[in-house]
Amino acid sequence: MAKRRSNEAAECPIAFALESVGDRWSILILRDAHQGTTRFDDFQKSLGIVPTTLTRRLAELVAAGLFARRRYNEHPPRDEYVLTQAGLDFAPVLVSLFAWGRRHFGADGTTVELVDRETGLPADPVIVDATSGAPVDSHHFHFVAGADASSRTVERLSRQRK
Amino acid sequence: MAKRRSNEAAECPIAFALESVGDRWSILILRDAHQGTTRFDDFQKSLGIVPTTLTRRLAELVAAGLFARRRYNEHPPRDEYVLTQAGLDFAPVLVSLFAWGRRHFGADGTTVELVDRETGLPADPVIVDATSGAPVDSHHFHFVAGADASSRTVERLSRQRK
Repeated sequence: MAKRRSNEAAECPIAFALESVGDRWSILILRDAHQGTTRFDDFQKSLGIVPTTLTRRLAELVAAGLFARRRYNEHPPRDEYVLTQAGLDFAPVLVSLFAWGRRHFGADGTTVELVDRETGLPADPVIVDATSGAPVDSHHFHFVAGADASSRTVERLSRQRK
Repeated sequence: MAKRRSNEAAECPIAFALESVGDRWSILILRDAHQGTTRFDDFQKSLGIVPTTLTRRLAELVAAGLFARRRYNEHPPRDEYVLTQAGLDFAPVLVSLFAWGRRHFGADGTTVELVDRETGLPADPVIVDATSGAPVDSHHFHFVAGADASSRTVERLSRQRK
């Protein structure tokens, strides 16, 4: 995927992340992959996506290092799309989107649930700091400009609640 | 924002979520808002976004219930954009994107950090289940089809690692 770090809006890890996945289809493809889908036809059927769009999005996700292509059939040639470590590490974003979507936009009945494999109980995901155990929320943590921040980033972050 | 639940790809809370924020600009606007930005000119300056695009994205985010418009000046009339509860609850998605972007795409130096307000130490965010304390990862949790799932969703989820 083409790098888009030409302006300073991109100067933060959230923006870096969105250079790879800043599109609804890309995230839905990652969702399906995290739920076991690997083959073009299965993505296509699950998402109801136009094949040319799916081809382009998969190529972008491969170029961004989130999927590796793996040949699973020689005659005819057929590839499948396997998550790389970077792709696998996207899981917390999907879980956070899931929890937020369920909480605020989930009034259409129960279509998908995230449940404990042992107990079957639904997950109640919260983010904590692995070191201190404290909730990673705006009371305990805040964003600060780093050593390499531009003046625009410094200005943006200066508007934060102290 | 127009509802796009016309096909079954949208049949899951992740897809519901992406109906409101499935666009790079929308997520960057939310990022800035979570870091204290409320005014049109400040969003515009921070993001370097074309004003007509910013106007449209803000209107969509208001329509989706993530921002409320609040008049802060009468002459001339000026509104600011304040996060609603749904907008505030988007924070874990931003933290997850931040952690993922930093881990895999963060080689350009330290521009933004997420640090503990007390200790100044960088956050190491992990998602856990608030009830059991178990990590919300694919070893402990999995997605399952709910009572109202379509056959397409049931088929997609049937491909998961058991």
